[in-house]
Amino acid sequence: MSKLFGSIEAGGTKFVCAVGNESLMILESATFPTDKPEETLQKAVDFFKQFEGSLVAIAVGSFGPIDVDINSDTYGFVTTTPKPNWGNFDMIGFLKAQLNLPMFFTTDVNSSAFGEKILAPSLNSLVYFTIGTGIGAGAIQGDTFIGGTSHAEMGHMFVKRHPEDLDFAGSCPFHGDCLEGVAAGPSLEARTGVRGEHISLESNVWDIQAYYIAQAAVSATLTLRPEKIIFGGGVMAQEHMMNRVRKQFSELLNDYVPVPDLTQYLQIPSIENNASATVGNFALAKRQYEINR
Amino acid sequence: MSKLFGSIEAGGTKFVCAVGNESLMILESATFPTDKPEETLQKAVDFFKQFEGSLVAIAVGSFGPIDVDINSDTYGFVTTTPKPNWGNFDMIGFLKAQLNLPMFFTTDVNSSAFGEKILAPSLNSLVYFTIGTGIGAGAIQGDTFIGGTSHAEMGHMFVKRHPEDLDFAGSCPFHGDCLEGVAAGPSLEARTGVRGEHISLESNVWDIQAYYIAQAAVSATLTLRPEKIIFGGGVMAQEHMMNRVRKQFSELLNDYVPVPDLTQYLQIPSIENNASATVGNFALAKRQYEINR
Repeated sequence: MSKLFGSIEAGGTKFVCAVGNESLMILESATFPTDKPEETLQKAVDFFKQFEGSLVAIAVGSFGPIDVDINSDTYGFVTTTPKPNWGNFDMIGFLKAQLNLPMFFTTDVNSSAFGEKILAPSLNSLVYFTIGTGIGAGAIQGDTFIGGTSHAEMGHMFVKRHPEDLDFAGSCPFHGDCLEGVAAGPSLEARTGVRGEHISLESNVWDIQAYYIAQAAVSATLTLRPEKIIFGGGVMAQEHMMNRVRKQFSELLNDYVPVPDLTQYLQIPSIENNASATVGNFALAKRQYEINR
Repeated sequence: MSKLFGSIEAGGTKFVCAVGNESLMILESATFPTDKPEETLQKAVDFFKQFEGSLVAIAVGSFGPIDVDINSDTYGFVTTTPKPNWGNFDMIGFLKAQLNLPMFFTTDVNSSAFGEKILAPSLNSLVYFTIGTGIGAGAIQGDTFIGGTSHAEMGHMFVKRHPEDLDFAGSCPFHGDCLEGVAAGPSLEARTGVRGEHISLESNVWDIQAYYIAQAAVSATLTLRPEKIIFGGGVMAQEHMMNRVRKQFSELLNDYVPVPDLTQYLQIPSIENNASATVGNFALAKRQYEINR
């Protein structure tokens, strides 16, 4: 019987569980809201139990911060998240207690980055940002996830404030006006009192948001020098936003270092339907299975 | 006869050439100002010609930006530097024309990072910043320099402006108020009209500068998650500055991710007399010799 690989994309608002085959094709999936940890993870366990016997490994890409250091006492834990009930919760421990399989644990954005790299094998280095209710980024150079002692948390770096946005205090509970505090989805509503999807395209909040996202891309460029920067999440799927970010990126970087044509360099995911993390997880589960074999 | 390894630390204001033995000890060195490229590099060539026969490889750690992609047509060039006469100059080509030896080419800060890692082999990942007339950073994760297509240029990332510093336009010719534009040495004189060494320790410019340097350390932490961040350069050798940076770093990061005790995590170089780059270059030259053998 052919082998199956499991994926859990543990997002802040929903869980997506899936099983795939050796070609990394999605065979079955289940989506449910991210509720209390035990209840949510039990649904994941129940989903995977259907495939016992064929399922040989699972990769989990989770919201963070998480502990990915396999030598740590809290490996597999969600750590300092402000998300109620999930702080210091042993996610991998809960799963392993009922599913005795090799597991790989990383961030949702690292899973997405890995999925995008699997589908573009000529790409040696890339960064994957997600701009949603939070901002996260995963990065790969060669065969390695960027991060010496743990995973990247680029969403919380500081940015130069837009001159028309200086009165906004930012909405990050840890840092106020870090990148996530001024550019994630909730910042749009915090500024305008209107949810993002109802804000006119004429509003200057889009250029303000693009200014901050462009700075994140400049920082990632100057620090990591990737071949490509990919932006996932609903906001960036809007063509007007990607174009605003490209324009501001070009002005901010000011040709200091060479980058590819911006329509190629700054892009949306190649894998459709937000499935980058799922494909990445199948590949990471497959790799983990081969290591453990 | 025992083998010798060569180091060129090509800084923006001076060149330091040295030869070392297989224990990476400095045997002889020569220092001269960074003048026109041909004249300066000829002095380097003349220095190394004294050791022909024993000298087996040279590593060059240069100010940047430089082209370190060995598949590029302009590999070995200094590229977009604002430094007069050095833009698009073929540094490695000039050296190779007269010294037929294996050479390794990287940034001065990567050389320094490598030197610090050689002397602390238990360290798996680190970042080395230099805060001087410019700001640069080199980073290592495992055995690899961070940088997918080229070297890091973290000195030009953008930072959140200090509320008491909003009127200062910054002194970077490319970006105005990027990190280098607001925190490198020349920014102190540009703000106050007084050279840094003559500014009172009571002046608030030190806290302003520390605020920006601390943000650079926060960004490096969140992006790279290194085990240690080292600060070279005269400004940071002053204990009051390192303490100001540690204090601001702690407030800015706000315990979002765990880091080691800050007196260990944010540190000056272990190698004295600014010799980190020279020791790193010896080790890189040795590695290059072994690869080419």
